Amino acid sequence: MKNPLLLQSIKGEPIKRFPVWLMRQAGRYMPQYRELRNKAPDFLTFCKDVKLATEVSLLPLHLLGVDAIIIFSDILIPLEPMGVKVSFKDGEGPSLEWDGEVKNLRVPSFREVSFVGEIIEEVKRLQKEVPVIGFCGGPFTLASYIIEGGSSSTLKKTKTFMWNRKDEWEHLMNLLVETLTHYLVGQAKAGADVLQIFDTWISYLPFEDFENYKRWLLRLVMQVKEKTQVPIIYFFRGSSSFLEALEGEKLDAVSVDWTVDMIGWMKRAPHLTFQGNMDPSLLYCEEDVIIEKTRGLLQKVPRSTRYIFNLGHGLSPDMDLNKVKLLVNTVKSFSW
Amino acid sequence: MKNPLLLQSIKGEPIKRFPVWLMRQAGRYMPQYRELRNKAPDFLTFCKDVKLATEVSLLPLHLLGVDAIIIFSDILIPLEPMGVKVSFKDGEGPSLEWDGEVKNLRVPSFREVSFVGEIIEEVKRLQKEVPVIGFCGGPFTLASYIIEGGSSSTLKKTKTFMWNRKDEWEHLMNLLVETLTHYLVGQAKAGADVLQIFDTWISYLPFEDFENYKRWLLRLVMQVKEKTQVPIIYFFRGSSSFLEALEGEKLDAVSVDWTVDMIGWMKRAPHLTFQGNMDPSLLYCEEDVIIEKTRGLLQKVPRSTRYIFNLGHGLSPDMDLNKVKLLVNTVKSFSW
Repeated sequence: MKNPLLLQSIKGEPIKRFPVWLMRQAGRYMPQYRELRNKAPDFLTFCKDVKLATEVSLLPLHLLGVDAIIIFSDILIPLEPMGVKVSFKDGEGPSLEWDGEVKNLRVPSFREVSFVGEIIEEVKRLQKEVPVIGFCGGPFTLASYIIEGGSSSTLKKTKTFMWNRKDEWEHLMNLLVETLTHYLVGQAKAGADVLQIFDTWISYLPFEDFENYKRWLLRLVMQVKEKTQVPIIYFFRGSSSFLEALEGEKLDAVSVDWTVDMIGWMKRAPHLTFQGNMDPSLLYCEEDVIIEKTRGLLQKVPRSTRYIFNLGHGLSPDMDLNKVKLLVNTVKSFSW
Repeated sequence: MKNPLLLQSIKGEPIKRFPVWLMRQAGRYMPQYRELRNKAPDFLTFCKDVKLATEVSLLPLHLLGVDAIIIFSDILIPLEPMGVKVSFKDGEGPSLEWDGEVKNLRVPSFREVSFVGEIIEEVKRLQKEVPVIGFCGGPFTLASYIIEGGSSSTLKKTKTFMWNRKDEWEHLMNLLVETLTHYLVGQAKAGADVLQIFDTWISYLPFEDFENYKRWLLRLVMQVKEKTQVPIIYFFRGSSSFLEALEGEKLDAVSVDWTVDMIGWMKRAPHLTFQGNMDPSLLYCEEDVIIEKTRGLLQKVPRSTRYIFNLGHGLSPDMDLNKVKLLVNTVKSFSW
């Protein structure tokens, strides 16, 4: 690998500058993405088309010069073979159908989503420059999609399910942890150099319930670690109380959002790799503001920190590719 | 005052049980509210009608038996005399119009919204049982409504304004702090026993910007405290990093949401009054779950804590009045 900067940073090896990649770096904001997207009839077919998904995954390497490629896919992919009907309508969020019975869900093997492994193999074959990131959704986040039937602004169905139907919730969490273990191990075996767990909707969870949920999350991490050496990044949104709850646990890296005092936490937990946490709204600002605020953040990160520059959340379709490039270049041109 | 429980708790005086009130306790979930609401042509007229707003404010005392009355009003009320056009369409959020020039906004006196004072006086006259809470929106939250022109799911306009147009942002914050100082002092002079600042949308703010914003918030608090003795509760949503940033500051009370480790914080900051932080989604649960989780929270609160039971956010229109009553009664029947 020509540029192993991201892996070096996670391991705490000496680096010349901080690595950078961006969540949803291959996405609708890129004209090149939209062109490829038009070649598939719907979003799920697009994700499952190994050739197209590989091409999309590679776009940010060529167009932005990022230090890592995340494979193009969707966190809902492993839910289909579990027994949930998943569909995407253009311009709307995902729609999920399920009969409400946890006992009718099953744990699929990685072979049932073998295209995900093939995308990783292809991306590895076609470029030897940067590490490849595989990923999955967090168990809570995926449970919320199953129960809400799509996106939600309150997650009230998910939380009432969790509180009213404790045994079934427990069962659902166990099923998801087993499914995601196979899913992440499969991606590591296919060649992923890093794995990221996206637990976006955890921000809706009460602290007490996060404390309780932690055991499933940590079981997933531990089970994957038993079978691979690949570092795992845990991405979550919301309160730094959750970071406090995770502080003593065996995690390689956490990816936090802009509401968290990341610089303060870097000093408090020097053993941890931090990823984040620039507010994506910065990309709507004028160019000099983008440069100034990005450099301002990098200057505050202690040089010894195992750090990966990223946003606190994904890029949006209405962002400007040139400003995204400027952001990446600002990070890449920063050195001490 | 027959039942000064809430004031006693804030002052740290001995109490027999924890006080309880609920944000948006007088609202659309009550048939009695909807009946009164139908007597006014639109929401703003409803808020400004002293007789109707007083009646609405009193509903939760009679229907729920809460330990405090919050006057019925809206956080956008002081923006109208500042020079912003505010309107509400039924079933939609608020809509605000402004020409984008901070220099065209002004600081109104409390006399220009005298109906707010009259509502407080009427509520005080008609009941001598419990304390009356006056309120305002936080400077950041109000700025976000002005700049976004309504509600937003990203606050990207607000944040780009703040970062691109620093001087105007500074000016806008100063105007809001002065306006809100008059507004809160006016409410205290009219008889409010407690004041609450609702800074809901602060949850969108990067930590670094919250650190910067704090000076306006604290100036508002300090200016009000120079002119009244009334305790002030600061309500915010989001990361407990913000609580950390406020820890050493002169605040009477903070109202936090369910993502914060409130019990941990009670031990860490015993000088502070805490309000919150039950997840409102609990009210969609079965009755035994409501009782169990409410008692569970109360049992964990150290008896010496200056504590006010509340939700982490307001009640919603689709909630069941009987379950809200059950919640209030569960708190009232709890003792050590």
